[in-house]
Amino acid sequence: MRLLALDSSGLVASCAIVENDTTIAEYTVNHKKTHSQTLLPMLDEIKRMTELDLATIDAIAIAAGPGSFTGLRIGSATAKGLGLALSIPIIPVPTVDALAYNLYGSDKLICPIMDARRNQVYTGLYEFQKGEENDSAYRMNIIEKQCAVDIAQIVETINSLGKETVFLGDGVAVYQEKIAELIKVPYSFAPACCNRQRAACVASLGAVLYAQGILETAAEHAPDYLRPSQAERERAEKGM
Amino acid sequence: MRLLALDSSGLVASCAIVENDTTIAEYTVNHKKTHSQTLLPMLDEIKRMTELDLATIDAIAIAAGPGSFTGLRIGSATAKGLGLALSIPIIPVPTVDALAYNLYGSDKLICPIMDARRNQVYTGLYEFQKGEENDSAYRMNIIEKQCAVDIAQIVETINSLGKETVFLGDGVAVYQEKIAELIKVPYSFAPACCNRQRAACVASLGAVLYAQGILETAAEHAPDYLRPSQAERERAEKGM
Repeated sequence: MRLLALDSSGLVASCAIVENDTTIAEYTVNHKKTHSQTLLPMLDEIKRMTELDLATIDAIAIAAGPGSFTGLRIGSATAKGLGLALSIPIIPVPTVDALAYNLYGSDKLICPIMDARRNQVYTGLYEFQKGEENDSAYRMNIIEKQCAVDIAQIVETINSLGKETVFLGDGVAVYQEKIAELIKVPYSFAPACCNRQRAACVASLGAVLYAQGILETAAEHAPDYLRPSQAERERAEKGM
Repeated sequence: MRLLALDSSGLVASCAIVENDTTIAEYTVNHKKTHSQTLLPMLDEIKRMTELDLATIDAIAIAAGPGSFTGLRIGSATAKGLGLALSIPIIPVPTVDALAYNLYGSDKLICPIMDARRNQVYTGLYEFQKGEENDSAYRMNIIEKQCAVDIAQIVETINSLGKETVFLGDGVAVYQEKIAELIKVPYSFAPACCNRQRAACVASLGAVLYAQGILETAAEHAPDYLRPSQAERERAEKGM
């Protein structure tokens, strides 16, 4: 099975082509340009470099949210357009789950944190567990489903679980000191090679979800913002 | 510190720009084109996309071998050229060590295997260990230094260590059945997002080696082939 994967949920823009157990191409940029300037040119670049015929893609795996509202809309619009044109389904991969997949096979508690502004983080808790067959792959279990909370709340949950934790994501730079102050278990931060969104992680987890039948049509697909947008919030506050 | 990283040791060509804890850009291709067609255009592409001034690069981390002889020469020639032009040092990162870094923080034994032809694999054994400070990163320990051996020999070493093992690398496809036949411990294979060479892994491990003072001038740098080339072998066989 050949997957196209996209992640534009955060500051990072990333796209990948993954075929079964092999990443054919992956291109990731974490730069100040907006995703509308980067994502499609990056996809065009890897398509050209790998002489890819888009008609051979079986499905599109996308980081479906939460994340930057504009970033999610650019990613989803791209996926919907391609999915409609190619008549292929979309695999909506929860953004925080895909971020946790960076630490595949770890026996620690994995806590991705994305800066969600307004004193919140998009976060969740995950751990990997080996299947029962001798050669079987690790399955990622969701301990705490992706959510938007105060950093103190997720650290409190980690403390109550009492398990060594690895943090990753763009929220680390913002909340590093707060974590150090509150945490009561051994912890560390993932290094540059595995601490941000990667489309290949979206694809690898997407393949697992695809096998579970988690997919939707391009017409059905919509990003999962997890919180109301600023405009919706302000309208609600005004009682409109 | 800003690093440029390159890996063209195997079928994969990969380049990355990493600044401290952040991957600014990474571009990886696993396609039938030769590295002489891909590596420099890929580097040019990420340089352009991230508006990178090459003069701001502090050092070049390179997968310094073992691997494909031609691939290593293309990578090292590129690194030497850039290093000489920019007057910056080269961090020679052992290829198999960088491959193992894909599974950062795992508590399993990590066994990368690259198909080395002539019934051998380039392999090694690694495990991660947490530092003593509460927030300190994991350090990768080398249990078995990178080497060229028969697959049976490395599996025998794994059996004698008796520890659960994760395999990765392009040798998995070739030796999967042989491993299943010989191995006596629980094992699994890493998925597409973390089972091949990645320049960001070369950079992350390169930063650790740089801190230990493991670097050389561009003039000094030469790849570590680990085995004599076919021409050298044939000359030796002829007693020349």
